[in-house]
Amino acid sequence: MATVGQVITCKAAVAWEANKPLVIEEVQVAPPQAGEVRIKILFTALCHTDAYTWSGKDPEGLFPCILGHEAAGIVESVGEGVTEVQPGDHVIPCYQAECRECKFCKSGKTNLCGKVRAATGVGVMMNDRKSRFSINGKPIYHFMGTSTFSQYTVVHDVSVAKIDPKAPLEKVCLLGCGVPTGLGAVWNTAKVEAGSIVAIFGLGTVGLAVAEGAKTAGASRIIGIDIDSKKFDRAKNFGVTEFINPKDHDKPIQQVIVDLTDGGVDYSFECIGNVSVMRSALECCHKGWGTSVIVGVAASGQEISTRPFQLVTGRVWKGTAFGGFKSRSQVPWLVDKYMNKEIKVDEYVTHSLMLGEINKAFDLMHEGDCLRCVLEMRT
Amino acid sequence: MATVGQVITCKAAVAWEANKPLVIEEVQVAPPQAGEVRIKILFTALCHTDAYTWSGKDPEGLFPCILGHEAAGIVESVGEGVTEVQPGDHVIPCYQAECRECKFCKSGKTNLCGKVRAATGVGVMMNDRKSRFSINGKPIYHFMGTSTFSQYTVVHDVSVAKIDPKAPLEKVCLLGCGVPTGLGAVWNTAKVEAGSIVAIFGLGTVGLAVAEGAKTAGASRIIGIDIDSKKFDRAKNFGVTEFINPKDHDKPIQQVIVDLTDGGVDYSFECIGNVSVMRSALECCHKGWGTSVIVGVAASGQEISTRPFQLVTGRVWKGTAFGGFKSRSQVPWLVDKYMNKEIKVDEYVTHSLMLGEINKAFDLMHEGDCLRCVLEMRT
Ligand SMILES: NC(=O)c1ccc[n+]([C@@H]2O[C@H](COP(=O)([O-])OP(=O)(O)OC[C@H]3O[C@@H](n4cnc5c(N)ncnc54)[C@H](O)[C@@H]3O)[C@@H](O)[C@H]2O)c1
Ligand SMILES: NC(=O)c1ccc[n+]([C@@H]2O[C@H](COP(=O)([O-])OP(=O)(O)OC[C@H]3O[C@@H](n4cnc5c(N)ncnc54)[C@H](O)[C@@H]3O)[C@@H](O)[C@H]2O)c1
Ligand SMILES: [Zn+2]
Ligand SMILES: [Zn+2]
Ligand SMILES: [Zn+2]
Ligand SMILES: [Zn+2]
Repeated sequence: MATVGQVITCKAAVAWEANKPLVIEEVQVAPPQAGEVRIKILFTALCHTDAYTWSGKDPEGLFPCILGHEAAGIVESVGEGVTEVQPGDHVIPCYQAECRECKFCKSGKTNLCGKVRAATGVGVMMNDRKSRFSINGKPIYHFMGTSTFSQYTVVHDVSVAKIDPKAPLEKVCLLGCGVPTGLGAVWNTAKVEAGSIVAIFGLGTVGLAVAEGAKTAGASRIIGIDIDSKKFDRAKNFGVTEFINPKDHDKPIQQVIVDLTDGGVDYSFECIGNVSVMRSALECCHKGWGTSVIVGVAASGQEISTRPFQLVTGRVWKGTAFGGFKSRSQVPWLVDKYMNKEIKVDEYVTHSLMLGEINKAFDLMHEGDCLRCVLEMRT
Repeated sequence: MATVGQVITCKAAVAWEANKPLVIEEVQVAPPQAGEVRIKILFTALCHTDAYTWSGKDPEGLFPCILGHEAAGIVESVGEGVTEVQPGDHVIPCYQAECRECKFCKSGKTNLCGKVRAATGVGVMMNDRKSRFSINGKPIYHFMGTSTFSQYTVVHDVSVAKIDPKAPLEKVCLLGCGVPTGLGAVWNTAKVEAGSIVAIFGLGTVGLAVAEGAKTAGASRIIGIDIDSKKFDRAKNFGVTEFINPKDHDKPIQQVIVDLTDGGVDYSFECIGNVSVMRSALECCHKGWGTSVIVGVAASGQEISTRPFQLVTGRVWKGTAFGGFKSRSQVPWLVDKYMNKEIKVDEYVTHSLMLGEINKAFDLMHEGDCLRCVLEMRT
């Protein structure tokens, strides 16, 4: 391609400052260096972590930056030493890398690869500890090692999952974050068994993916809890069998659930990011074996608490990041499952807009009927 | 025996009021009713739960009562329908029952049998919701379903483990609580694998049993943490390979351990009952997989807390009661392991006194060199 080895100038939504509308800018995207991949992003969705960092509440947020981490695209060019993908490959950028050689990857116990974290955590690339994005020479920080709110982005090769080229990118972009997080929380982190009683707190994209994961695992009852009763109808399609709105009850929600389930649920999932709900999610678990998985991301500095007796009497408190999926190995497998109609993806796409309408897309996130808004990369 | 079916009058240490010295009294012990077993206690040890309830800090403590739950004895007589033990059997009373038929027992996931809890939790027997102990007609409450600070006690048949009659009762009485708790925390709850790095907070009986459990599981490093450096020498015999006294460090103890272990330990155990140490024990675990087990019992009303990010990044928070052992099934197996010299017991007995000296035995618990004080049931 004519662009190989060249700086590409393209459109990107830049977050210049916390809490100020993103601005569509002409951005210079440098060629990929050793171990890097430049990707033409075709579709990106928005997720809460983008909104959280944009809001300024994330103490590690760096500005100006290019947000975005749930996307799909096509490899434009690759840097030296990159062997697993080549130009033209269809890919999903993965905020959680998988290098297959660090102690995390080798442990077999976690998906939290540590290879590029020191760079992605501070908005730069490993090779020269610099950004590949700039505007008239002024560097713009990367975000989560993905920065998908740009027509072109540069990522580490350990952060690229090569997928079936027949997969519709405007749909499978969702397999970059929210949907795998929910499915994996059930399949990998909790390992829900057939016949289990499951409680899901929060029925957004992540909570619904938990419901679908629990349904395929054979859960006998899937109790959905949300303060917005409008969520309930849609949730039925994802497998939720019973609904509770905490606002309809005077008793603490954990007590309501314990009463409804003869002692508590086998598994619970917090898919909101609210530390007080995290406590309820633990305490609605059955004595002796109930396991609660924290999926939601709480604001910085907030803490969870409970009486230790809850754990001494057999409850287990866990969490999950990207649902425990190994990104490069398993995102392609999830795409195949979608292509085989074994998992839903289309059903989470409630809105479609263009990159140029990204601020409207952020507003949509706060509206009850929006699950995922997918942006086409036109301005 | 002449006593069968008769009230037995014998000596017991009665806790008349919280925080007042126990008094050796003549107590009437009624015959066992249906599903009950009367046991002649020969040896009892003291454990922290006895001291905690005695102190008055346990909001569920009932007075007057007969404390004690780490003991061994011989069955004197059995009530109607009791088939698994008979007069003359050597037994260990178990504060954690095992009925083999309630939903907890049948789950295969927990040892927390629920069969007699509604009665033992309020100091009475299931059959008539009354106590078998009295003094001149005034009932004295049972404690933990065991009440072993009495020459004779009555317990539910689901709370009696029949053991090898050749086992020395003055030693295996310890298999009623502290030692199994530590071993089982490692073997059943954490399931420590060979090569693991383990941290143990608190090197009393429970912490030392954790060390022995970790050693037999093949742990590569066993780090003992105690604020009393006198504990360190003895702990070597139980498998501890490194020692840290938090008082020797300015940094938080979790940071000291993370630095010493290239990122944290694989498993940690809190064996003190201090909620702030419980947090340290979680946070010294390795990202991605570190598991922390709460073994210590905190005072009522106290809470544990941490940032949820600790769990989202892969740490697991658990607890254990009686080390997850199924009491009637597994206490006899532990006795056999002791008889085969596969686990230590003798080494935990640091003091021997008579029942009449029980207040002195409580004082000993607060002295650094006492692990377990075993009482012979003479006054
Ligand atoms: N751990 C991970 O790897 C990971 C990955 C992606 C997203 N997340 C997090 O998962 C969470 C959920 O994401 P989402 O996209 O589904 O969000 P969402 O906003 O679409 O859904 C949240 C739902 O929770 C409901 N809710 C809010 N407060 C509630 C309360 N007190 N009780 C009951 N329900 C309540 C809302 O009505 C909404 O339906 C977010 O915190 C996000 O940051 C975590
Ligand atoms: N979960 C269960 O089933 C179960 C069963 C038995 C005992 N327990 C509990 O286990 C705990 C330990 O029992 P034990 O008999 O070994 O007690 P112990 O008092 O003999 O041992 C506690 C040790 O912790 C040390 N310590 C105290 N504060 C410390 C601190 N801040 N940092 C580091 N070390 C500190 C003490 O010096 C002592 O060596 C108690 O809370 C007891 O109630 C629980
Ligand atoms: Zn996300
Ligand atoms: Zn790695
Ligand atoms: Zn005890
Ligand atoms: Zn039972």
